[in-house]
Amino acid sequence: MSKVAIVYHSGFGHTQALAEAVAAGARAVASTSVSLIPVAEAEARAAELDAADAIVFGSPTYMGGLSAEFARFKDWTSSRWMQGAWRNKLAAGFTVSASWNGDKHNTLYQLLTLAVQHGMIWIGLGLPPGNNSSTGSIADLNRLGASIGAMGQANADQGVEGIAASDFKTFEALGRRVAEATQRWHEAPQRLAA
Amino acid sequence: MSKVAIVYHSGFGHTQALAEAVAAGARAVASTSVSLIPVAEAEARAAELDAADAIVFGSPTYMGGLSAEFARFKDWTSSRWMQGAWRNKLAAGFTVSASWNGDKHNTLYQLLTLAVQHGMIWIGLGLPPGNNSSTGSIADLNRLGASIGAMGQANADQGVEGIAASDFKTFEALGRRVAEATQRWHEAPQRLAA
Amino acid sequence: MSKVAIVYHSGFGHTQALAEAVAAGARAVASTSVSLIPVAEAEARAAELDAADAIVFGSPTYMGGLSAEFARFKDWTSSRWMQGAWRNKLAAGFTVSASWNGDKHNTLYQLLTLAVQHGMIWIGLGLPPGNNSSTGSIADLNRLGASIGAMGQANADQGVEGIAASDFKTFEALGRRVAEATQRWHEAPQRLAA
Amino acid sequence: MSKVAIVYHSGFGHTQALAEAVAAGARAVASTSVSLIPVAEAEARAAELDAADAIVFGSPTYMGGLSAEFARFKDWTSSRWMQGAWRNKLAAGFTVSASWNGDKHNTLYQLLTLAVQHGMIWIGLGLPPGNNSSTGSIADLNRLGASIGAMGQANADQGVEGIAASDFKTFEALGRRVAEATQRWHEAPQRLAA
Repeated sequence: MSKVAIVYHSGFGHTQALAEAVAAGARAVASTSVSLIPVAEAEARAAELDAADAIVFGSPTYMGGLSAEFARFKDWTSSRWMQGAWRNKLAAGFTVSASWNGDKHNTLYQLLTLAVQHGMIWIGLGLPPGNNSSTGSIADLNRLGASIGAMGQANADQGVEGIAASDFKTFEALGRRVAEATQRWHEAPQRLAA
Repeated sequence: MSKVAIVYHSGFGHTQALAEAVAAGARAVASTSVSLIPVAEAEARAAELDAADAIVFGSPTYMGGLSAEFARFKDWTSSRWMQGAWRNKLAAGFTVSASWNGDKHNTLYQLLTLAVQHGMIWIGLGLPPGNNSSTGSIADLNRLGASIGAMGQANADQGVEGIAASDFKTFEALGRRVAEATQRWHEAPQRLAA
Repeated sequence: MSKVAIVYHSGFGHTQALAEAVAAGARAVASTSVSLIPVAEAEARAAELDAADAIVFGSPTYMGGLSAEFARFKDWTSSRWMQGAWRNKLAAGFTVSASWNGDKHNTLYQLLTLAVQHGMIWIGLGLPPGNNSSTGSIADLNRLGASIGAMGQANADQGVEGIAASDFKTFEALGRRVAEATQRWHEAPQRLAA
Repeated sequence: MSKVAIVYHSGFGHTQALAEAVAAGARAVASTSVSLIPVAEAEARAAELDAADAIVFGSPTYMGGLSAEFARFKDWTSSRWMQGAWRNKLAAGFTVSASWNGDKHNTLYQLLTLAVQHGMIWIGLGLPPGNNSSTGSIADLNRLGASIGAMGQANADQGVEGIAASDFKTFEALGRRVAEATQRWHEAPQRLAA
């Protein structure tokens, strides 16, 4: 059994809906258990995070970066960092905002930085870019052409119903990829010095 | 008369077409002269760059960053850096690639880094994000929602005809903004110590 | 009279001491008034921020990015963004952490991203790198070799007394530079369309 | 036997000396073969890169980013990207410049972006920051406090003799970490869908 934790902040429901898609993708991989943890519960559920083989981080992009609520979680993780508690776990990340770019790149880069500070191994999105040729469309997987992690887009005046079906599929693919990588990584743990 | 130089690399014509849009926007501002300089001519036209009040940098995004041709120009600018030749000039940047994100952010960030190493002042795009509500469309200015500089998108299997009209208008707006800022900055030059 | 506001978060006093150095540098420029605003007071003092000609942002680097307290301020600025209240103001940034690099770059990049989302103009540090030749030392200005903004370093087990004198001078130089640029920018305000 | 390739550009010898330290660290791990490939030979030795289980990328930081020579290699890798030839390999990166920061962060971020575009898995440095307390010194491992990859520093007026012994040890530690992770990853390759 390998364990994937997904820790996220959602202000208006979009990030939560996409976190659930990541969870669904991970759960579809046999012998994988998934914990879905809102940042507000992270401190109380620290044991689940510490026990996870992989942690996926998710934050909306607010004013070009991590939401304050996610940043509070980030700062709290210094307690885990002091102990090296997440060292050599796998990590991945996702974000969503109203614009097609909207500096989402920046948010994913923050999540990557957090992960490598903890000594974690980063699993990128691993999907070729879609929606970038004359035969492509927004129905393509990875329609935004992301690489560090998964990016979603939903109009500023819409709720969860504004998220494209292809974004849900893209986030599921990230969850599946992380769970598969976790099983592979999990099978020979003695090989990397703590 | 204030002087704006636009230095760019174009592999397949897209960046050149967009550089010309930036030039058109800058030329539309009274008392502005514009130099459009392909990176291959930059060394020979160094005097034009040194005389400019503002330099706009443009590179396609190849494999998530500056094209090698633009990077060669970047490295060459160390000769100007040694002399502080571009200190306190204004700067801005633009890029284009096939994907909607496609790590274009990264390329703009490289251009910004180059500029601040030279002690230049960075003029962002200055347009609110478009195409991010249910009443928006790809006809909006800044349809990709960029902020550091201008971002364009053209399908991988199309030439210049694949660039959206709104991208041309967005790049013109950047040129106009840079030219206006340059005039403003140019009028009281004694205020910032060389 | 031109107005410079410095808005910062300080967890243990280091960022505050350096914010005061930025303020001292700005105040040394004639006809400049300076507001020093802790993020906890930013909402109550929003009018000072809106009236400023330049805003300097300062955050410690915690776990590779903005502190949660600064991120809360960042998110709050969406109210100013909606109104375009800070458009075409000048901006700059600074950070401090215990390590020589310690991903401080990332924090400055967040501050830059915030500024360009607001349509602000970014003033980098504008000092050549020090402490990078066999005749250099940590007494050099810009001993860390920063370019986007000012970087300070203080050992993890020391308070304000652990900040190098050269860091204080570097931060003063940033304040002076911002104030000089603000006066220059301020003299011909009609040139850039609101 | 697991295979680690190190592909690098060195303008003045510093990056080559550090690439050799990465190689030495990797070779110290049993059952690991190491290829050390200057970018000028990368095209001719593409088969070695394609056969590697892990690729470590190294570039000096020139004017805040990848050297033009490394960027040429980066652009060439689009031929491997088209075939998904490096998908799910492990990756890591390193850089060196004269300043303590000097925007080295930016170079490592470029290397990371290249890797995730290829669908590679990123192994950060994995060392806690050194030289950041009153009992620390530049003799500490990771004296610069890097996290995404390894950072070295050598004075601008010195050759390889200017590189600190601790930097060599830090780069060796990166090589060892990559080789250990490669063996672990290599043992259960069937788990991650190509």
